[in-house]
Amino acid sequence: MLTLKSPWLRRLALALTTVAAVAAGPAQKHAKYVFLFIGDGMAMPQISSAEVFSRAMTSKDISINRLGFTQFPVAGLTTTYDAGSFITDSASAGTALATGNKTLNGVINMDTTKTRQFKTITEYVHERGVKVGIVTTVSLDHATPASFYAKTPSRGNYYDISVQLGRSGFEYFGGGGFLQPRGKDHDQADAIALARQAGYTYVNDKAAFQALKPGAGKVLAVNRTLQDSSSMPYEIDRKPDDLSLADYTRKGIELMASNPKGFFLMVEGGKIDWACHANDAASSIRDTLAFDRAVSEAVKFAEKHAGDTLIVVTGDHECGGMTLGFAGTQYSTFFARIAPQKMSFQRFNDEVVEPYKQATARDKARLGDLAPAIRENFGMDLAALSPLQQAQLEAAFQRTMGNGQAQPAQEDRFLLYGGYEPITIKVTQLLNQTAGIGWTSYAHTGVPVATFAKGVGQELFAGYYDNTDIFRRLARVMGVATPSR
Amino acid sequence: MLTLKSPWLRRLALALTTVAAVAAGPAQKHAKYVFLFIGDGMAMPQISSAEVFSRAMTSKDISINRLGFTQFPVAGLTTTYDAGSFITDSASAGTALATGNKTLNGVINMDTTKTRQFKTITEYVHERGVKVGIVTTVSLDHATPASFYAKTPSRGNYYDISVQLGRSGFEYFGGGGFLQPRGKDHDQADAIALARQAGYTYVNDKAAFQALKPGAGKVLAVNRTLQDSSSMPYEIDRKPDDLSLADYTRKGIELMASNPKGFFLMVEGGKIDWACHANDAASSIRDTLAFDRAVSEAVKFAEKHAGDTLIVVTGDHECGGMTLGFAGTQYSTFFARIAPQKMSFQRFNDEVVEPYKQATARDKARLGDLAPAIRENFGMDLAALSPLQQAQLEAAFQRTMGNGQAQPAQEDRFLLYGGYEPITIKVTQLLNQTAGIGWTSYAHTGVPVATFAKGVGQELFAGYYDNTDIFRRLARVMGVATPSR
Repeated sequence: MLTLKSPWLRRLALALTTVAAVAAGPAQKHAKYVFLFIGDGMAMPQISSAEVFSRAMTSKDISINRLGFTQFPVAGLTTTYDAGSFITDSASAGTALATGNKTLNGVINMDTTKTRQFKTITEYVHERGVKVGIVTTVSLDHATPASFYAKTPSRGNYYDISVQLGRSGFEYFGGGGFLQPRGKDHDQADAIALARQAGYTYVNDKAAFQALKPGAGKVLAVNRTLQDSSSMPYEIDRKPDDLSLADYTRKGIELMASNPKGFFLMVEGGKIDWACHANDAASSIRDTLAFDRAVSEAVKFAEKHAGDTLIVVTGDHECGGMTLGFAGTQYSTFFARIAPQKMSFQRFNDEVVEPYKQATARDKARLGDLAPAIRENFGMDLAALSPLQQAQLEAAFQRTMGNGQAQPAQEDRFLLYGGYEPITIKVTQLLNQTAGIGWTSYAHTGVPVATFAKGVGQELFAGYYDNTDIFRRLARVMGVATPSR
Repeated sequence: MLTLKSPWLRRLALALTTVAAVAAGPAQKHAKYVFLFIGDGMAMPQISSAEVFSRAMTSKDISINRLGFTQFPVAGLTTTYDAGSFITDSASAGTALATGNKTLNGVINMDTTKTRQFKTITEYVHERGVKVGIVTTVSLDHATPASFYAKTPSRGNYYDISVQLGRSGFEYFGGGGFLQPRGKDHDQADAIALARQAGYTYVNDKAAFQALKPGAGKVLAVNRTLQDSSSMPYEIDRKPDDLSLADYTRKGIELMASNPKGFFLMVEGGKIDWACHANDAASSIRDTLAFDRAVSEAVKFAEKHAGDTLIVVTGDHECGGMTLGFAGTQYSTFFARIAPQKMSFQRFNDEVVEPYKQATARDKARLGDLAPAIRENFGMDLAALSPLQQAQLEAAFQRTMGNGQAQPAQEDRFLLYGGYEPITIKVTQLLNQTAGIGWTSYAHTGVPVATFAKGVGQELFAGYYDNTDIFRRLARVMGVATPSR
């Protein structure tokens, strides 16, 4: 071996070694802090509609306001099909993201025979001392969050899932509540009580939430205000003073950042999906913008921990078959037409449609009775609709009131209204059409989603790959050796 | 300065310099051979439907067969809005790709005032000795190909465009024909004759085309078989013996490859768009697969010239608001249901609907008369449609026959049929619905498209960027200094 006695030669050799290592490409650097943001039901149409809307609110020129996360240095495309259908649900998609395995619709972290369990990315890292947080706008026992801490043959086993939450030992749960905290028949031990027995600090109001400080131990934070299905309110319905997804994200960072082994934080914007199921673009867009604000909390943290942090933002599937264009508006879009919308389809249904239905005799019901509320809350004048659109709205109204002279066949009822209150879903669907936004479904669709990454290992998330690859790439960045496929 | 006398030290210093240069990142290497493939109307839904269909034809398991070009190492996302509308047309999109400038719908390579001309990537490279080829399945004077050799305030100026073709001096034009070769009123000098006078060899049959060899000089090759609007036939209608887009691509390579300065070849799959305007998924998919085969000709060439070649594949916009999922089929897709389709909507219209319309008295017309042809050519049994779908088909049929008892308002006629023969468009639209494919428009939509790249400079095409950036990145890879914005 050559021995280098001259200090100059030694420095030269050292420099050469360093430079050569850089040129060869470093071994995968590991990230200490990893964020996985999942926009449920968020594919390019959902992202793009938010970017167009955001621009349309601030400028008359044609352009887009890029969201924070779409400005990340890396963008990729991700397929979402599962083991049984080209169109995934959130359970099989969550399983793919959390474990790298395809399974059937409805199954969480188990194989297609519903017998074998899969190990999750959160389990892998938690056993190595990494703290784990789970945040969502929907109930904590819903499919996407559950995929990061539970295993069950059916996503509908809400109680079983909520019991697994308490047993997970993960450090932070925040957002929505529980669908069946005492079981389907309300006769089981309360899941929140079980979590407290397992050492969780449970908070349910803003003051207690804000008072949480590092060292608080394991935390289960359920939003005080809950809307449909124990979820946090749609962003469009959220009172300014209420906690937001960004608040829950920031608190998770605050509570876990001092851990010497770092953390893994999954944050779901869960109601982008719900808004799209109901073909309500304004609510989808406002939830997407709120989701982006949650991501920006991670970005702020990453600015201080740039060499140790990875942020990945993806969607689990598209929802609603949303399109940025519609037959009736041809080559034009009018996004400003959805700006006056003041409430979600859900709140309109709860506060306007249901009370009207209860208070009005079938034979006295007139669509015109609802016209002022539609104008007030959606900025939509019924006279501005085309004759065909007016007829569709009238038919939906009559169906809601039980007056359908020709009851559509079961298959067509779903095709027309997707299981929603007919008049409710038609109001946003038709308003969206006037804005140049089309919908083809009340379910998910199979178009690939977009994935964005920033930070340590970001380059792994470029290209066109499957959702199961996200698990593998996250594992690689976190230094987890996973079984090869 | 340090002088190195020892040979060992000199070698070490040389190695250090080389390695350091690699580590610093090389100056942009230039590509000698550049391919730009444009799938007109091809965004992720069009790509993804082809990948799902391709798999469904060969396997019962749920997965996709990746197209050749989606396996390229780099994938990006590209916005397409133009200067006047969030939804671009092919003229403003072509202008963006060819010159890096936004303009209005309908304008080719001129600014929004329609007075200032833009310089195209093809002009930049041609004046430096690079050979230029333009290939398309649609007419050569159509907006996308025209954007690479012509400038005009209106894409409808077909004659002007075709005259500019002859004056371009570009080396190779191949594919469809001309819409107005003798002008709008058939009273102008024939554009093909003008091209011949300008030195072009004109070929119009397969044998002469195949006989073309390097050294042939400038070539204008128009396909012998033309379908609607002087385009090559839809792939689904193409006779096996007829020339394909891949044939025109391969010939372009063959004719231009020996040029010491290399070539730039633009290849458009133009009828993916037309099929999507008409909501005909099977025809869109078969044209997308044919487009992929054309790309594979470039890939074969690149394998022999890896260090000198760049292949970029993009779309100019989405078309039809295609979704991989539909309300009526919920979480299922049945792509095999479009496999039996034997002809495009266009051929069905030309060969079945029009003759029936001519031969049948209004009051004798019955949808049932067309049922056998629909079953034979689309594999669709009308009884398998839902009552609502059957009613839509019946209404479209009556409208086609002029029997509509209630003529829809102008705006709703477009909403329902998009300017197409009503029965023709409803057949494929409804067949697609049974397969789980939805459509929201007969026009383009604004969702970003996907861009794929392979070869020299491929890394420039990663990320999420605007279609005007494609021009700038191509220019960079071809060593063209363009005016900064």
